[in-house]
Amino acid sequence: MPRSGFSGSFSSPKIDVVIDMGNPFLNRTVDGFLKIGAVGACKVAAEETFECLHRGDVSKHKVEHALSKMCKEGAYWGTVAGVYVSMVYGVERVRGRSDWKNAMIGGALSGALISGASNSDRGKVVKDAITAGAVATAVEFINCIT
Amino acid sequence: MPRSGFSGSFSSPKIDVVIDMGNPFLNRTVDGFLKIGAVGACKVAAEETFECLHRGDVSKHKVEHALSKMCKEGAYWGTVAGVYVSMVYGVERVRGRSDWKNAMIGGALSGALISGASNSDRGKVVKDAITAGAVATAVEFINCIT
Repeated sequence: MPRSGFSGSFSSPKIDVVIDMGNPFLNRTVDGFLKIGAVGACKVAAEETFECLHRGDVSKHKVEHALSKMCKEGAYWGTVAGVYVSMVYGVERVRGRSDWKNAMIGGALSGALISGASNSDRGKVVKDAITAGAVATAVEFINCIT
Repeated sequence: MPRSGFSGSFSSPKIDVVIDMGNPFLNRTVDGFLKIGAVGACKVAAEETFECLHRGDVSKHKVEHALSKMCKEGAYWGTVAGVYVSMVYGVERVRGRSDWKNAMIGGALSGALISGASNSDRGKVVKDAITAGAVATAVEFINCIT
């Protein structure tokens, strides 16, 4: 007996932008910048959409504000990720080993670099480096568990 | 010609605590709690040591304060990690697939849960969930790059 029904499949769109800079170090940095920048921009887009739905008004001004915020935050997330990825790669090359200490050292270096770029208080830079190193280590451990 | 020299090797101490709770879900949660809790406690220890060196005074009161802060922050980091790891595992079991969307959904769920436990403003909970989901996704992507 023939049966009628509905069958469909949904697959999420996949965009994989690969830019070859001719150097593994640069490739990773650009990859990190683009991917994490996109995640940061999506996060702002989701937040602003929720804000608009919550308040119930959408104006041209709001949309413009959201777009500029998306660009800013996306660039910031991308920069942080690019710096971290390149630091970890550099540490891996120098140490010649691939373990969680790379993440710790890379995280601490990038934390110090990013913090040092935005403020000049030496104590705060060291604390930010410690925090970044700890977060990177935690992330590395979580990775092994999940 | 015999040469005299110094040769030594240093290997960092390794402690791997494995507690079998008889259930993969519980095992991961406990594993995440212990490992990330330890990282959080180490972070506070490093910070407080730097503080003491920076100011140049060490007192019994300071050490006690540092120890209590280590316990508090370690427990907080551990709880967050435990919740996240168990959420990702749960999402993986429900979806039957293992990709970056598990991290996103797990991150958003844990963000909502942790934020909802500490405050009751619905808007803030949703924003925290969005941020946590985005951070978890970014971490998953960074993993693939490094």
